[in-house]
Amino acid sequence: MMVAETLEQAAGKRERAGRSARREQRSHGAEGLGRPYILRNIPTYDILSEENLIRIETTADRILAEIGIEFRDDPVALDLWKRAGADVTGLLVKFEPGMLREILKTAPAEFVQHARNPAKSVLIGGKSVVFSPAYGSPFVMDLDRGRRYGTIEDFRNFVKLAQSSPWLHHSGGTICEPVDVPVNKRHLDMVHAHIKYSDRPFMGSVTTESRAEDSIDMARIVFGRDFVDRNCVILGNVNVNSPLVWDGTMTLALRAYARANQAAVVVPFILGGAMGPVTNAGAIAQSLAETMVGCALTQLERPGAPVIFGNFLSSMSLRSGSPTFGTPEPAIGSMVIGQLARRLNLPLRCSGNFTTSKLPDAQAMNEGTMSMLAAVHCGANFILHSAGFLDGLLSMSYEKFVMDADFCGALHSYLDGVKIDDNQLALDAFREVGPGSHFFGCAHTMANYQTAFWDTEIADNEPFEKWQAAGSRDAALRANQRWKKMLAEYQAPPLDEAVDEALLDFIDRKKAGMADAWY
Amino acid sequence: MMVAETLEQAAGKRERAGRSARREQRSHGAEGLGRPYILRNIPTYDILSEENLIRIETTADRILAEIGIEFRDDPVALDLWKRAGADVTGLLVKFEPGMLREILKTAPAEFVQHARNPAKSVLIGGKSVVFSPAYGSPFVMDLDRGRRYGTIEDFRNFVKLAQSSPWLHHSGGTICEPVDVPVNKRHLDMVHAHIKYSDRPFMGSVTTESRAEDSIDMARIVFGRDFVDRNCVILGNVNVNSPLVWDGTMTLALRAYARANQAAVVVPFILGGAMGPVTNAGAIAQSLAETMVGCALTQLERPGAPVIFGNFLSSMSLRSGSPTFGTPEPAIGSMVIGQLARRLNLPLRCSGNFTTSKLPDAQAMNEGTMSMLAAVHCGANFILHSAGFLDGLLSMSYEKFVMDADFCGALHSYLDGVKIDDNQLALDAFREVGPGSHFFGCAHTMANYQTAFWDTEIADNEPFEKWQAAGSRDAALRANQRWKKMLAEYQAPPLDEAVDEALLDFIDRKKAGMADAWY
Repeated sequence: MMVAETLEQAAGKRERAGRSARREQRSHGAEGLGRPYILRNIPTYDILSEENLIRIETTADRILAEIGIEFRDDPVALDLWKRAGADVTGLLVKFEPGMLREILKTAPAEFVQHARNPAKSVLIGGKSVVFSPAYGSPFVMDLDRGRRYGTIEDFRNFVKLAQSSPWLHHSGGTICEPVDVPVNKRHLDMVHAHIKYSDRPFMGSVTTESRAEDSIDMARIVFGRDFVDRNCVILGNVNVNSPLVWDGTMTLALRAYARANQAAVVVPFILGGAMGPVTNAGAIAQSLAETMVGCALTQLERPGAPVIFGNFLSSMSLRSGSPTFGTPEPAIGSMVIGQLARRLNLPLRCSGNFTTSKLPDAQAMNEGTMSMLAAVHCGANFILHSAGFLDGLLSMSYEKFVMDADFCGALHSYLDGVKIDDNQLALDAFREVGPGSHFFGCAHTMANYQTAFWDTEIADNEPFEKWQAAGSRDAALRANQRWKKMLAEYQAPPLDEAVDEALLDFIDRKKAGMADAWY
Repeated sequence: MMVAETLEQAAGKRERAGRSARREQRSHGAEGLGRPYILRNIPTYDILSEENLIRIETTADRILAEIGIEFRDDPVALDLWKRAGADVTGLLVKFEPGMLREILKTAPAEFVQHARNPAKSVLIGGKSVVFSPAYGSPFVMDLDRGRRYGTIEDFRNFVKLAQSSPWLHHSGGTICEPVDVPVNKRHLDMVHAHIKYSDRPFMGSVTTESRAEDSIDMARIVFGRDFVDRNCVILGNVNVNSPLVWDGTMTLALRAYARANQAAVVVPFILGGAMGPVTNAGAIAQSLAETMVGCALTQLERPGAPVIFGNFLSSMSLRSGSPTFGTPEPAIGSMVIGQLARRLNLPLRCSGNFTTSKLPDAQAMNEGTMSMLAAVHCGANFILHSAGFLDGLLSMSYEKFVMDADFCGALHSYLDGVKIDDNQLALDAFREVGPGSHFFGCAHTMANYQTAFWDTEIADNEPFEKWQAAGSRDAALRANQRWKKMLAEYQAPPLDEAVDEALLDFIDRKKAGMADAWY
C-alpha cells in the first residue's frame, strides 16, 4: 500500500503538471502530454440495491457450492484447492460459501504497475482509470488497404500510435496477432515491441506457461530481477473457459504471473445464451463466480500477489445468433459488475469501445461510446479495448484507434467532473457582464478559456461552408490522415542500448531453441 | 395528480401490453409497437454532493437578488412580478432568495400530455422518459440530395418517420423550418401536420403570442375547449435570451401557454463563454436562475399550470470560437441540472443526440451517444432533439433520424435495467447445463431468448463475409435505405374527417387574414 500511496502523491503532482501541460498544449495548439492515468472525480454509477446485489452474490455462491468449477490439465491447481479446503472430486471443485471471499482478503485493493519510464507508471485500483488499447484481433484494417491479417509491422505501428497518444495510459498486450511470425515465437517479438517502441506499462503472453515466463523474464531484463519480485511490471490477461471451466493453459499462465508477483487479469468471456445464460442477472452471477475462483487461485499461488477482477459480457443477435457488442444489456451488466468488484475490494477491469461494425462508421462509435461510458461509469480501473476494436474483436482498425483515443481524451475531462469554487461559479463574471451582454471578452473568460473545454483532434466543429471548402470529409477520412501523421511524427522513447541488446540476445537464444510452429 | 396516477396505472398495463407486442415483434421479425413512454427502472446518476448543489443554488440566488433579470417588451410580466413582491426597477427585476421557490410550489411535479390517440398520451415527470425529435433546423439533409433548405414536405416526412418509429414517443414541434411557407403562416401548417400525420403528442408555435394562441386553438378543435382547459395537450418550447434577459416575444408566448393551462418548456440556451460564463459551474448556476424565473412566471400567470424545467448547455471550440455539441462538459452539466430540477420537484427537459458533425458519421454518433446518455442518466423526463440533430442544429438529417430512433430503442432496454428474480438469476439453467457445455438449446434459453436482448434495425452484426457479400455498406447507407422504406410503408393514423375539415377551415380563415411575410 505504501508504494501505491507514494505513487498517488506523485500522481497528484504529475496531474497538476499534466494540467499545465494541457494548458500549454491548448494555448499553443500543439500536442502535449496527458496524465499517466486518471483519478476520477465523479462517483461510480451504482444501479442495483444492496438487496439485489446480495441475491446475485448468493446465486454465485450456490453455483460454486452446488455445481462447481472444473479444472482441466492442471493437477497443481487441484492440489492447491484441496489444501485450501475445497471439495475436490476428480476435476470438479466445489466451494463452501464464504471460502473464496476469505482467500481474496490477501489480494491488494490497489497496486502500481510500473513502467520503464517511472513517470508513466499507473495506479490500478481505487479511483484510478487506465486506458489500454484493444487486444487480440487477427485482422487489421485501414481505409486504404481494407481488412487483412495483422503483421508484426502492424503490431509495432499500433504500439507507436498508443505511445503517441496523450490520452492512452498503457501499451496493451496482443494489440493484433502478428501472423507473419510463428505462433510459438510471436510473444517474444510482441513484448520486445512494447518495451522498445513504448515507455508505458504493458501486458505479456498467456498462451502457454513458458510464453508467460518468457514475457516475465524479458521484464526482468528491463527492471531487474529483485524489482520484479517486489513490484508489478507486467500484466497477463487470462480467460475463463466459460461456463464453469478453467483449463490448464490458462491456470498455468495465471499461476506463472502470480508466482512472479505479477498481476493476472481474470476474465470470463460470457456471450449470453452461449457460454452463459441468456438472462443478464444469471450471466453476471456466473461472471462473479468464475472471476472469484481465478482471483482466489492467484492468492493460493502467492498470497498478496496483485490481481485484477475482470469481466467481458456480451449479447447475441436473435436473428443470426451472432455475438453483439456495445448493446444495452452488457452495458447495464458492467455497472452491476462494478458494484460487485467494489464489494470484494478488488481492482476492476472492463472493456471499452466494443462494436460489431466492420467500418469506423456511425454504428462503430454509437456502440463503442455506449460501451466505453459503461466502463467509465461502473468504476473500472483498467479499461482494455479502449482503442481500435472493430468487427467484434476480429479487426484492429487504424482509423477507429485514433477516433477512440480522441474519445479517451474527452473522457479525461468527463472524469474531472464539475469543479465548484468561486472562480468556477463566476459570480464576478455576472457582475461584470450583466443582463443582455455577452461573455466573449470578459476578464473571467480570458482567465479561464484555455482550460475550460475539451479540445478534440478528430471532430469537426467548423461552420458547414468551411468544412465543405476543406473537402467535406467525414470522421473516418480525417482519422485516416491523423494516424498517418502520428506515425510519421512518432519519436521512439529512449531505451538503454545494453538493455535492448540483452533483450535481443534473449529472444535470439529462445528462438534458436524452437522450430517454427504455425498453429 | 389524480389524472397522472390513473395514467401511470394505465401505462403499466400498456407497458405490459407493449412488452408482449415487442415479444410478438421479435418472434415475427416485424415492426411492432414500443411503449407510449418509458418508466425508468434504473436510478438517476447523481454526481454532486448536497453541499456543492447548495453552492450552485446560492450562486443562482445571488445572481437573481444582486444582478437581476431584464424583462423587455412585456409590461404585464413586469406587473406580475411587482404584484408578487419582486423588486422591479425599469425593466430590471430582482428576486429575494426563496421567493421563486415559494411561487414554484404550485407547479405540478408531473402531468400528462394527452395525445389525440389516448393510448399514446405521455406522462411527463417522475420516472418518465419521453423521446421527441430534434427541433428548429433551417436545413434538411440526406445522402442523395445533400444539404438544402427544409420544406413543408420534409416537415411532413419527419412527422411520418417519427410516427412510424416504435421508439419515439412524441411528434415534436418545429422538426425543421418549412421555408417554402411564409414565416407568419408556417405554424398553421406545422401544427396541422402533427395532428394529421401523427397521433402522438406534439408542440406548438412560440414565435409570437398570436401563433402560440393559434396553435392552442387548433388543439382545442381536436380535443374540445373544456378538455384543453383542464388538461395539457400541447407544449411550447420557450427560450431565454441569455444572459439574464427574457424578451417579450418569449414571455408573451410562455404566458399564452400557461393561461391556457398548457405546458411551457423553459430553456436557457447557454453557450459557455458567449451567453454564459466559460466555466461549467457558473453556466449551470445561470441556467438554474433563468429557468426558475421562467417557470415561476407561468405560475403567476396561472397557478398550477404545467411547466417543464429545461436546459441547453453547450461548449465552444477554443480554436475557432464555434459552438460544440456532444462534448464532455455539457454532459456533466446535464447531470448537475438533473439534481437541481429534482430539488425543485419539477419535470426536466434535456437535449438528446447533439453533434456538430455535418454527416451521419462516426463523429455524429460519438457525440450524439455521449449527449443522449447524459440526458438519460440525469433523469430528464422530456428529451428534445432525440433524433435527427446534425451540424449544430442547422440540419435535420434523414439518415441520422433513423439511426437515433434505433438508439432510442436500445435505450428502452437500457432504462429497463437488470431484473432480479429466480428466472433471471437462472440457477436452474446452470444445473441443466453444467461446466464445459453451452446454453444454446437449453430450456432456460428457449424460454427467454425472445425478450433477452435489444434487437437493432440499423446495426450490422453479421459475420464480415456476409456483410461484404451484402455490399459492404456502412451505417449511413443502411439508414438511407431504412428511412425510404419507412416512408414508403407509412400508414396515416385515422383522423375524424370533421375534425380535419374544421382544422383546414381554421387555417384557411387565418391565412386569408394575413399577407405573406418571409422574414
